[in-house]
Amino acid sequence: MDSRTGLPVVGMVGGGQLARMTHQASIALGQSLRVLALTPEDGAALVAADVRYGDHTDLAALRTFAKGCDVVTFDHEHVPNEHVQALATEGVAVYPGAEALLYAQDKRAMRERLSALAPMPAWQPVTLPEDVVEFGDRVGWPVVLKAARGGYDGRGVWVVSDAREAAEQTALLIEGGTELIVEERVALRRELAVQVARSPFGQVAAYPVVETVQRDGICVEVLAPAPALPEALALRAQQLAIDIANALGVVGMLAVELFEVDAVGPRTGRASEVDAVGPRTGQASEVDAVGPRAGGVDGAGETGGGPRLVVNELAMRPHNSGHWTIEGARTSQFEQHLRAVLDYPMGDTALTAPAVAMANVLGGPEGGMSIDERLHHLFAEDPGVKVHLYGKQVRPGRKIGHVTVLGDDMDEVRARAERAARWLREGK
Amino acid sequence: MDSRTGLPVVGMVGGGQLARMTHQASIALGQSLRVLALTPEDGAALVAADVRYGDHTDLAALRTFAKGCDVVTFDHEHVPNEHVQALATEGVAVYPGAEALLYAQDKRAMRERLSALAPMPAWQPVTLPEDVVEFGDRVGWPVVLKAARGGYDGRGVWVVSDAREAAEQTALLIEGGTELIVEERVALRRELAVQVARSPFGQVAAYPVVETVQRDGICVEVLAPAPALPEALALRAQQLAIDIANALGVVGMLAVELFEVDAVGPRTGRASEVDAVGPRTGQASEVDAVGPRAGGVDGAGETGGGPRLVVNELAMRPHNSGHWTIEGARTSQFEQHLRAVLDYPMGDTALTAPAVAMANVLGGPEGGMSIDERLHHLFAEDPGVKVHLYGKQVRPGRKIGHVTVLGDDMDEVRARAERAARWLREGK
Ligand SMILES: Nc1ncnc2c1ncn2[C@@H]1O[C@H](COP(=O)(O)OP(=O)(O)O)[C@@H](O)[C@H]1O
Ligand SMILES: Nc1ncnc2c1ncn2[C@@H]1O[C@H](COP(=O)(O)OP(=O)(O)O)[C@@H](O)[C@H]1O
Ligand SMILES: [Mg+2]
Ligand SMILES: [Mg+2]
Repeated sequence: MDSRTGLPVVGMVGGGQLARMTHQASIALGQSLRVLALTPEDGAALVAADVRYGDHTDLAALRTFAKGCDVVTFDHEHVPNEHVQALATEGVAVYPGAEALLYAQDKRAMRERLSALAPMPAWQPVTLPEDVVEFGDRVGWPVVLKAARGGYDGRGVWVVSDAREAAEQTALLIEGGTELIVEERVALRRELAVQVARSPFGQVAAYPVVETVQRDGICVEVLAPAPALPEALALRAQQLAIDIANALGVVGMLAVELFEVDAVGPRTGRASEVDAVGPRTGQASEVDAVGPRAGGVDGAGETGGGPRLVVNELAMRPHNSGHWTIEGARTSQFEQHLRAVLDYPMGDTALTAPAVAMANVLGGPEGGMSIDERLHHLFAEDPGVKVHLYGKQVRPGRKIGHVTVLGDDMDEVRARAERAARWLREGK
Repeated sequence: MDSRTGLPVVGMVGGGQLARMTHQASIALGQSLRVLALTPEDGAALVAADVRYGDHTDLAALRTFAKGCDVVTFDHEHVPNEHVQALATEGVAVYPGAEALLYAQDKRAMRERLSALAPMPAWQPVTLPEDVVEFGDRVGWPVVLKAARGGYDGRGVWVVSDAREAAEQTALLIEGGTELIVEERVALRRELAVQVARSPFGQVAAYPVVETVQRDGICVEVLAPAPALPEALALRAQQLAIDIANALGVVGMLAVELFEVDAVGPRTGRASEVDAVGPRTGQASEVDAVGPRAGGVDGAGETGGGPRLVVNELAMRPHNSGHWTIEGARTSQFEQHLRAVLDYPMGDTALTAPAVAMANVLGGPEGGMSIDERLHHLFAEDPGVKVHLYGKQVRPGRKIGHVTVLGDDMDEVRARAERAARWLREGK
């Protein structure tokens, strides 16, 4: 407890923009986030009053940090799971706990665990290059090769086109010590995400389902609510996330990344073959009793012509797909994460406007106007855009901030958000 | 400039809740507010990364603080005006500047300066107790005695009922060295406030007019927009604030506190006498040409039966009457203040919901539930209420935070805000 305020102390491991924005939210709750940063230039270290330094892979540093925190939580998933376990064993309240966090850290463990809970793409663990070749020959090329751990923003995801490329790429990665899984390349209509927050008490609150737009594996835009999403599908997505949060015992924010796919289509047609032979489908009959069928895209619940959902991956922290909630939802994901880990009742997740668009600001080419000058121009052009800068040095491709626009019409707010992000990136 | 971010550094003198919430807003702009606080327990010192310590009445401390700031601004108006002048002379960009700030610091100077600009209550400077007696006998009892400088939250405001009380109270205050003015006690229908932001470039943006509800001289509630305010009166209030901001050369947020009064009524009837004899009315004819007539309540513009406005006082910083803007306006007053002092274009001031109610949370009686437990209960009861705690130790009557509720119906959001504030204050 902070003796000055009489309120509990939340410590966040990692000093990036998520910690930065969580600190911002903590101020309203009477708090001041304690941050474990790597350097004084970390986004959160630039703005938080209570910053400690240390490496998140160093158990001693984590132990020291946890002292005097009432709760420890995370800005990223790169803390070794055994360290999280060790802290918990020593009595630290760590949220999410190691058992839950594992499924945000390890895509192989996640795919195995969720096979009984949620529809997923056909997939397989990889031991040898031949596994990938055999998988691709069976489900169809190209396939998606993924590092089980440590990937983000598409780093750790490779699309391989044919058997030759698969054999080469896989051999290289295995040699480099990367543990891999392989997935069918889903013929996705679009990507969606749904966030829920869950408290230790067990309360779960779900946010509206959003559409996420990726470019080169990086999320560049989020539209809330997901345009033209059938109500039934939105409810299914929320229920899926709630079920996952409960089954895994997540505490804090959980983001479930989803693919929206056609019920019938060329890939799906192939995927049904997979059902017959894939390793996961053996469990499908017990799964049927508790929810949608697992294993292969076309195992995603009811049959028929409508779109369906498959789970891509999980994140257990505030997530890029929820930045829109700062202005666009009654309770931001950052406040909600704090409320959850503090075991406060969850806040209202309702939208504050009919249409909300968020666009990430990536660092543009060097030179040209300073970020300060760009801000001037942007504010002059669109007084309604909300800007969030992370205090980072601009480097090409680096996420240096995001913008959010609210309004009545999705096309309009989306165009404004894109324009604003481009301005900040390119100064034109 | 902050070499780590390439953005200018804003320094705020004073470490209270206004600096705390301004820091919060600065984070989104890529900034981190530099704060001059008195103690590490100051609300802003608890949450800001860059806190310096020193007394705001000490010119040397102000000079040291200003070094490395691109702009210096204020959390309160207690910095001696000559110190603000001195800093400006030495090349510091201080916003608002000393000439403007004076009118938020000194009620006598403000009344004199605004006499040609805005309708005001009948008033008079006080040199001797007899001045007050004579004024009261002329305009009617009771009258309002005010400290010209240093008052806030009603400290520095005394209602005196009759000649005897006036003579006694005034003698005491004069003896204590307090410079005084005396005003007619306005028969106010209600209190309003209007905020504008003005940049050095000269851009001015006005917020919707709000109703402020005071109890014992302290603002306890703010309703945005002011319920049932005729459009013409709202426009007049905004125009008045814009004119004042321009005339005084304000930079940053300006709050104009207003009284809404009947055009005709017992006090107003008396006030017309004042017009004939009061010291300010001599200027009324030149005033007529530029705007509403000055001097006395019934000099507030058009005649007729409708309500009219008189100016109570000015504040040149984020203000309690604008806390609702954090969630209730597209741009919060804290972001707007930063944009103004940074000479960025102003942000959109539109409401984000049809009805917004803000209630201050005052410290309640000692004992009972901790603030943490109260938060739990409040969040369980009303997931939609937005809480802002200032990190202060609870002391009876002290402003320890505020709550904001948004919705479609003013009666409903007001009741919820009141209930939430009472919960946090009393734990019941
Ligand atoms: N099986 C798949 N089929 C099609 N596209 C995929 C598949 N897996 C990933 N992707 C694409 O790659 C992006 C990044 O993959 P993801 O597993 O989410 O990695 P990261 O951890 O880097 O976010 C996804 O958002 C999606 O656009
Ligand atoms: N002339 C007046 N007539 C009636 N009420 C007044 C008058 N002046 C002040 N008040 C009341 O006292 C409150 C505080 O006065 P104000 O001058 O605003 O002092 P402070 O600087 O403490 O805010 C006002 O909000 C209003 O309720
Ligand atoms: Mg992903
Ligand atoms: Mg006042």
